Amino acid sequence: MPAGPAAEPVIAVDAMGGDYAPDEIVAGALAAQREHGINVLLTGPPARLRPVIAKLGAGAELRVVPAEDVVGMDEGALAGFRRPRSSIAVACQLVRRGQAAAVVSAGSTGAIVASARQRLLPLPAVPRPGLAVVLPTHPSHTVLIDAGATADPKPEMLVQFGQLGVAYAQIALGIATPKVGLLTIGAEPGKGNMLTRRAHELLAAEPQHGALPLSFAGNVEGGDLMAGAVDVIVTDGFTGNVALKTLEGSIRFAAAELRSALTGTRAARVGALLQRRGLRELSSRLDAETYGGAALLGLGGTVVIAHGASTAHAVSSACALAASLARGDITDKIRERIGVAAERRAPHFLRRERERDRERERDR
Amino acid sequence: MPAGPAAEPVIAVDAMGGDYAPDEIVAGALAAQREHGINVLLTGPPARLRPVIAKLGAGAELRVVPAEDVVGMDEGALAGFRRPRSSIAVACQLVRRGQAAAVVSAGSTGAIVASARQRLLPLPAVPRPGLAVVLPTHPSHTVLIDAGATADPKPEMLVQFGQLGVAYAQIALGIATPKVGLLTIGAEPGKGNMLTRRAHELLAAEPQHGALPLSFAGNVEGGDLMAGAVDVIVTDGFTGNVALKTLEGSIRFAAAELRSALTGTRAARVGALLQRRGLRELSSRLDAETYGGAALLGLGGTVVIAHGASTAHAVSSACALAASLARGDITDKIRERIGVAAERRAPHFLRRERERDRERERDR
Repeated sequence: MPAGPAAEPVIAVDAMGGDYAPDEIVAGALAAQREHGINVLLTGPPARLRPVIAKLGAGAELRVVPAEDVVGMDEGALAGFRRPRSSIAVACQLVRRGQAAAVVSAGSTGAIVASARQRLLPLPAVPRPGLAVVLPTHPSHTVLIDAGATADPKPEMLVQFGQLGVAYAQIALGIATPKVGLLTIGAEPGKGNMLTRRAHELLAAEPQHGALPLSFAGNVEGGDLMAGAVDVIVTDGFTGNVALKTLEGSIRFAAAELRSALTGTRAARVGALLQRRGLRELSSRLDAETYGGAALLGLGGTVVIAHGASTAHAVSSACALAASLARGDITDKIRERIGVAAERRAPHFLRRERERDRERERDR
Repeated sequence: MPAGPAAEPVIAVDAMGGDYAPDEIVAGALAAQREHGINVLLTGPPARLRPVIAKLGAGAELRVVPAEDVVGMDEGALAGFRRPRSSIAVACQLVRRGQAAAVVSAGSTGAIVASARQRLLPLPAVPRPGLAVVLPTHPSHTVLIDAGATADPKPEMLVQFGQLGVAYAQIALGIATPKVGLLTIGAEPGKGNMLTRRAHELLAAEPQHGALPLSFAGNVEGGDLMAGAVDVIVTDGFTGNVALKTLEGSIRFAAAELRSALTGTRAARVGALLQRRGLRELSSRLDAETYGGAALLGLGGTVVIAHGASTAHAVSSACALAASLARGDITDKIRERIGVAAERRAPHFLRRERERDRERERDR
């Protein structure tokens, strides 16, 4: 890979998405550009962004691509589909036109996914995108995919999510041959619901249509999410989202319970004072901000979705993740993994999906 | 309710189910009988149980119903269906014949559910049972149903799980009008997968077929499981099992991380010594043992499934839960909630389920 700022990918940043937009988003984008040498393109209403940029003393540094419309944090998929002049839609269009390599947004997940599905080119043989998140297990991390992009996938799509997750783990986590597990109930192959029983068969079978082989390690259960036993955990977007939010909620619950246990008696209060630093380090390690956000994979361009409550630090991490995925050519890697000849030989439902996408394309 | 030991329900205890069977199971059953005045019937091979009972000095106190076959902890649904002389099958038959009011087992969940579905009479209009667990939220607890009995339910079944959960919350938690939430992704009615979108419509509609109305509070997300915002959370058995195991795994993970954070430095180690008691109290509160196990509801008799690693204390709690559900006439309460006229007017899939159950019955 050639070095120097000229070789750095351009990242389109939706300056209006997020609870603290545009101030924290602009500050984070600036930090990414100054500290990580990432080229940033901000999308949003220039009249709102100019004063924020000026206040940061970055008038000459940050480029703005005008987008007059803003999708609210309480808006969902419909807004993403229908609002072509929104800051998230314009960011996706920059990628589609080749002016940016990836998108970063801290806006409403539903609106981002819908906007990206409509505006980024679909990849051959990937009818639905998957949302990949990195779980802070250790010693090594685990990728969970899909964490909420596709609620009702077909079993074949879970195999593709496995391929997306492997490409992601290779580039973002540097794991050469990631082990893939299937999230289900019960460890044996016959366990689970109809979707996962069929997906297990497909994951355990020889790869189809010229796809690269997966290192399939079998079923994993909810209790294994934080165990670090596999590198990629595959699931449907409904189960993945419930599991991710359960995980976050449980850790929050356990921390709050411990805090009250730790301050319950006088001796415990003295102890708590002595331990503040250890607890702070832990909570920063568990903090989603550190992990740079979720990556929407399987489209002709990557979108990194940062937490809605992202501060400048989180936005800068998300930009760094987006740049690293773009540098690793994740889209090409996914194409290669899924298999180039896939579309021609794709099963009926894949062809139908593809036709629908083309129709949507024509209607635009 | 009449007082005194004569009025106490008889509980059939599967003496051979569980990692520490039969020793801990027999000890727990004895404790339930001695301390809570519960009448216990043990099922298992008399030659194996007699020495255990004698060692506890309870030869005259504990009754044994012979069951020569034992289902292993690593066996699943097939063993539950096919082994009519196993200790779990005999326990279910005692309830079916009216000789016991409920079953307690710490055996393999898959085998227990399959055995109970085959051997306990089905309730009219409840084609599938649901597994209810109590989550240790506070100030009040929350019932999660289904935690793993039915992996692919129809939307109508989620409404019935709501009714089962309400009956359970009324009897076991003493909540007069439990609020019911639907576990899904996204708070708005249109969010979720196909199953939960339809279930939301049914839960929000007027009750059908003479069922009692539910106090439906709308969608809840994974992060709300431990928030205590609703009294009953309804979900399919696949999602419920993944969520429950994710919750347990996350709390274990957070506790282990905290323990290592708390012992990382010398000052923190001193602090940890001062706090041991607080941590111990917390971990006992979070310990599943305290909550007496999961209840399989929706059949003509209740089965309380204790954790596989149950010790005597956990088995005794499970017996107390089973007795309390039997005293509250949970099966009658469920019949009343679901509606007596339900079967005649039941949709096609319910009638088909019922016919299959009858065929299975004839084949036996």
